[in-house]
Amino acid sequence: MTGVGLIGTGFMGKCHALAWNSVRTVFGDVAKVRLVHLGEANADLARQRASELGFDRASGDWRAVVADPEVDVISLTTPNQFHPEMAIAILEAGKHLWCEKPMAPTLAEAEAMAAAARKSGKTAVLGYNYIQSPAIRHIRQLLDEKIIGEVNHLRVEMDEDFMADPEAPFFWKHEAKSGYGALDDFAVHPLSLISALFGCVGSVMCDMAKPYPDRQVAGGGRRAVETYDIASSLIHLQNGVSGTLLVNRSAWGRKGRIQVQIFGSKGSIVFDQERFNEIQLYVTSDRATEQGYRTILAAPVHEPYGKFIPAPGHGLGFNDLKTIECRELLARIAGQPARVIDFDEGLEIERTVHAMARSFAEQKWVKVR
Amino acid sequence: MTGVGLIGTGFMGKCHALAWNSVRTVFGDVAKVRLVHLGEANADLARQRASELGFDRASGDWRAVVADPEVDVISLTTPNQFHPEMAIAILEAGKHLWCEKPMAPTLAEAEAMAAAARKSGKTAVLGYNYIQSPAIRHIRQLLDEKIIGEVNHLRVEMDEDFMADPEAPFFWKHEAKSGYGALDDFAVHPLSLISALFGCVGSVMCDMAKPYPDRQVAGGGRRAVETYDIASSLIHLQNGVSGTLLVNRSAWGRKGRIQVQIFGSKGSIVFDQERFNEIQLYVTSDRATEQGYRTILAAPVHEPYGKFIPAPGHGLGFNDLKTIECRELLARIAGQPARVIDFDEGLEIERTVHAMARSFAEQKWVKVR
Amino acid sequence: MTGVGLIGTGFMGKCHALAWNSVRTVFGDVAKVRLVHLGEANADLARQRASELGFDRASGDWRAVVADPEVDVISLTTPNQFHPEMAIAILEAGKHLWCEKPMAPTLAEAEAMAAAARKSGKTAVLGYNYIQSPAIRHIRQLLDEKIIGEVNHLRVEMDEDFMADPEAPFFWKHEAKSGYGALDDFAVHPLSLISALFGCVGSVMCDMAKPYPDRQVAGGGRRAVETYDIASSLIHLQNGVSGTLLVNRSAWGRKGRIQVQIFGSKGSIVFDQERFNEIQLYVTSDRATEQGYRTILAAPVHEPYGKFIPAPGHGLGFNDLKTIECRELLARIAGQPARVIDFDEGLEIERTVHAMARSFAEQKWVKVR
Amino acid sequence: MTGVGLIGTGFMGKCHALAWNSVRTVFGDVAKVRLVHLGEANADLARQRASELGFDRASGDWRAVVADPEVDVISLTTPNQFHPEMAIAILEAGKHLWCEKPMAPTLAEAEAMAAAARKSGKTAVLGYNYIQSPAIRHIRQLLDEKIIGEVNHLRVEMDEDFMADPEAPFFWKHEAKSGYGALDDFAVHPLSLISALFGCVGSVMCDMAKPYPDRQVAGGGRRAVETYDIASSLIHLQNGVSGTLLVNRSAWGRKGRIQVQIFGSKGSIVFDQERFNEIQLYVTSDRATEQGYRTILAAPVHEPYGKFIPAPGHGLGFNDLKTIECRELLARIAGQPARVIDFDEGLEIERTVHAMARSFAEQKWVKVR
Repeated sequence: MTGVGLIGTGFMGKCHALAWNSVRTVFGDVAKVRLVHLGEANADLARQRASELGFDRASGDWRAVVADPEVDVISLTTPNQFHPEMAIAILEAGKHLWCEKPMAPTLAEAEAMAAAARKSGKTAVLGYNYIQSPAIRHIRQLLDEKIIGEVNHLRVEMDEDFMADPEAPFFWKHEAKSGYGALDDFAVHPLSLISALFGCVGSVMCDMAKPYPDRQVAGGGRRAVETYDIASSLIHLQNGVSGTLLVNRSAWGRKGRIQVQIFGSKGSIVFDQERFNEIQLYVTSDRATEQGYRTILAAPVHEPYGKFIPAPGHGLGFNDLKTIECRELLARIAGQPARVIDFDEGLEIERTVHAMARSFAEQKWVKVR
Repeated sequence: MTGVGLIGTGFMGKCHALAWNSVRTVFGDVAKVRLVHLGEANADLARQRASELGFDRASGDWRAVVADPEVDVISLTTPNQFHPEMAIAILEAGKHLWCEKPMAPTLAEAEAMAAAARKSGKTAVLGYNYIQSPAIRHIRQLLDEKIIGEVNHLRVEMDEDFMADPEAPFFWKHEAKSGYGALDDFAVHPLSLISALFGCVGSVMCDMAKPYPDRQVAGGGRRAVETYDIASSLIHLQNGVSGTLLVNRSAWGRKGRIQVQIFGSKGSIVFDQERFNEIQLYVTSDRATEQGYRTILAAPVHEPYGKFIPAPGHGLGFNDLKTIECRELLARIAGQPARVIDFDEGLEIERTVHAMARSFAEQKWVKVR
Repeated sequence: MTGVGLIGTGFMGKCHALAWNSVRTVFGDVAKVRLVHLGEANADLARQRASELGFDRASGDWRAVVADPEVDVISLTTPNQFHPEMAIAILEAGKHLWCEKPMAPTLAEAEAMAAAARKSGKTAVLGYNYIQSPAIRHIRQLLDEKIIGEVNHLRVEMDEDFMADPEAPFFWKHEAKSGYGALDDFAVHPLSLISALFGCVGSVMCDMAKPYPDRQVAGGGRRAVETYDIASSLIHLQNGVSGTLLVNRSAWGRKGRIQVQIFGSKGSIVFDQERFNEIQLYVTSDRATEQGYRTILAAPVHEPYGKFIPAPGHGLGFNDLKTIECRELLARIAGQPARVIDFDEGLEIERTVHAMARSFAEQKWVKVR
Repeated sequence: MTGVGLIGTGFMGKCHALAWNSVRTVFGDVAKVRLVHLGEANADLARQRASELGFDRASGDWRAVVADPEVDVISLTTPNQFHPEMAIAILEAGKHLWCEKPMAPTLAEAEAMAAAARKSGKTAVLGYNYIQSPAIRHIRQLLDEKIIGEVNHLRVEMDEDFMADPEAPFFWKHEAKSGYGALDDFAVHPLSLISALFGCVGSVMCDMAKPYPDRQVAGGGRRAVETYDIASSLIHLQNGVSGTLLVNRSAWGRKGRIQVQIFGSKGSIVFDQERFNEIQLYVTSDRATEQGYRTILAAPVHEPYGKFIPAPGHGLGFNDLKTIECRELLARIAGQPARVIDFDEGLEIERTVHAMARSFAEQKWVKVR
């Protein structure tokens, strides 16, 4: 029996709760899960959310969750800025930690978190759920099998449009203290895919842009926007592969697009998170007259799709990716092989983001390490 | 607190269990759910599945689930042929019933089930989950709003390929006693969409075909296939709209395709279940130079997508549709408005299937009623 | 040197002129072409069009074109109703004939035309240009090679929207004397593809519908529409394959759609004329984890694409199909193998259309022969 | 009557000949065209090609074409390195010039050509045919009308795979003297689109890569590849818009892809040359529940599609773009408004390419001027 705590109940908090509720039913091969203790900003909200999400106990103080002896693992889904203090406390309390990304506003804080994880000996995993789809897992297998030969180039784009409206008022994501902009808000996701598929980024050359230099404020007047909704980077992976990483959170029409184009010596792979149950594969082993991108639909032959649905082409959903991640977390806790991005790997991702920001500031190529 | 029983734990049994596990976490607006009692073919299997799926009690006799006083509603996911006896027993025991489709092998049995439901005064709902997607709900709204004007023609196709391999051996779905073939196996799904979007079918003209007239049997030799993997029907809806309904369970490359094409006086709508988070809409109100099918991604503005994910374009999965269906079932039980296909509406669907089979046998148009 | 006459200069007349202008430049392997004599409804129009389209002479009387001793072959692109008289005169004058489809309003007239062709010993070819695309030719080759095994089912749809607007006034295509409606206007195209890929249709069961029963007339008031914009047929090919053929000229959003779905024992093929430089192919010889429809772009490896463009994926256009047809016509005239639909094959297509109309009238299956 | 000369009869030479043959038939509004004189490397080849392509005279010396008094305009389609000498001679002989892109191997030569054009007072136009598609023209109109508001970001990719095979032997495009690689071979095309849609590029930051560092040579052994098949640039337009321009001629599976993504304050536009009869448009003026990319098919409402085909959605081909370009050239010669890229605009494109190469060499941002 695994006792679960949850701190934070926004978008990702609910998503974690759903994963905890479903993981054993879906996979069957993990210990029973008990949703023990939920923490929120105040006791009333905590009680309400605990009732809705199925937790036994509720507290208005997150430290009560950390201290709960029946809690073995804690889902941490509070805003980014609270991660360092909470994560380190959780690890020092000897609990396993499932922390939403990104780790922390500054690299120093992220390093401290990673150090705490190492010292604790506990499992500390980040919520990079996009790496968990059967499609991405299968792409990794295709790469390992050299189905497209040696990879020589890579393009990744991530675009959404939730900040595309120039009439929307100034809000906290426009302030410099919220971070760089799309770079930390978005780029960590494609970087998690790059990390899972190819390893570390070696050097970067980044440009950033503000589509709207200022925005209206509630009380009247306008205020200069301090963050960059667009970031475009030339990148070199440590393994020598070149590529580009482009992100835009003001891209009208894009809702959850993460397009990955991988070019190899014997073929290519194209993937888009907006249709994450599909892989586009081109291979030169097909006869010349029949070469073309094939659209492969996720199916039970692509692990772990079959744990959810025994029929091909029926489609997993976004929340299912969190359930897979939850299962991998439990496998890691149990000392089994697991596909996760732990704090050390996550730290590399954040190091890359900060290198990109520095590259933009200095207008030159920057080495990640 | 709603007490749940489950009889049958195959593909759909697990799917129901996941829905029961998630429904309150997702929607928040339903009573707490307790997974009380699971029934399977024998006690050992029942215990194992109850542990995996999260039920408190397990029985090797389905009647124990029916008799359990803590059970308020029962998910019935056993094979089709067991539905009549079990469903009627469940309703007579005063439990609400969530029964997988189709209702029963014969029309007479389905009629008996519908009569039992009427007599019981309990909620009896069929598991037609495809009608529950935000896309289909939104299409219904677009039709109600006359966004594409008056509908004048309809084409529906449903295709999969799980019976497409001519080398696969003869099995029970090839026997006449399993039903007509694709007609009862598949056509009920598109008919559920037609029912939800347009109402009843009035008359039908059906053709059926066997792609492979015989198949190898395990012990050697070959046996004539008795069912039809392909069925193609001309249809007239009761409202006068003409159309076609084409199904094929030997269609290589199709995995979960249900394509719907709806033509109206001011536009058209195209939908495909293989990409059920998308709607294709063409409207003549666009300027002439910019008319074209637009691909609408499911989003929080399309109910109830936002209950699962607050961000657009991230995608629901197949299992999520069952969770929506579960919520609608609970709403119906609570006497609230609900989008479900109950036993009376389901009976119309099965009546249509049998009319199609009769049309093929008699090689002429047949009225459904 | 081939001397060319042209009678009729509408949509198809210009298309023929472009083909005659380009055929030798594209293919190189045909005799020089001289555009000799153009016929139109009156001498002034004829002269103007001859100048634009590049013909040496012009006449207001089509018989002058037929009588011209320097004319070897005549493109006949006048409305359908004029075909019988003109075509027979052309053939009797000992000229080769390239006649736009369909042949004639009635089956008897089409039969007389075919008889005249047989008697003349001249080449008489119909303008079924859709069969000429590299994609369709390659599909034929894939079928011949049994790449998708034995074909067992077929679906063809043809849809456009030029009659979809209910506010458009009554015009000649709404009169019964113009024909049945979509059946003769459209269905001949998909039937030409079926003929080129599979051979003859054996029997048919057809339904027809009028999306708008009446329309406004210029002077005020409304008039009942006499033709059917929608026709849906169940079909059996002579080779035993079953299928459907669905046409709709009131299908909002469809512009030049001819979708063909071909299901075989080892794979399937999907084609859409709106993207006629692409073929969708699914084959079971791919590894299970990588099976999926591949999108094959037309390329020099697909004859005769390379005669137009040496680079793959750059795309032929609609008018290029006519140039290919022109080259095939010249090959047939020269006694070489050629892919064309001649008057005998065209007669079978029209026989099928009339059988469909009879099936609708009698509400039963009708044998084509 | 316009007298035409042609020098060079490869891929583009044939393409020009087809355009000259068709332009009056298609457009009707240009003077008659006579194909007067064709020049090739030797007299025999010239005679053969003149016969095939429809020219009256042939010469083995290009200077004879330039000197021909009946020639008014010359299509120059020889390899890049011959352009400067020939183009300047043509202009000095007082002929109009239609020259294939790019202008010349070095910027100095391109500048000399532009100077010669200015001095001559004759029309000198480059063969950037991709700007001529109805789709690109319509995108320009959409931008002018501010349908997507103010553009703030731009991404352009151009990919093909004709150099993707690592087993293909070393050839002249791998030598440094052929140019930089994909940069001059490919990037000029997307730059022509940027020039036509947005104007000049202001500054660039470029990275280049070699997918295969060496290749086998015919006689045995391997030779180091000197050119770069991949080039990726961050760009700033002179109007302040930021973006990226990525090219790859070793991109397996891509055949003629030029993808353009344009992001504005009220919508976005996506275009891909592989489906150049389609535009993807997203606009925020659609109702929130129906927003989505619409696929607009080229149609007579998009100039000059209707000159080729009166029916929408039937599709232009690659060669048709050259016919449109030819018509624009003739309009420019006649002193009418015309959409062309003349030598001055073409010089800006080449200046940008050389700036990119310098940026890569110096590893820093470079201003184009």
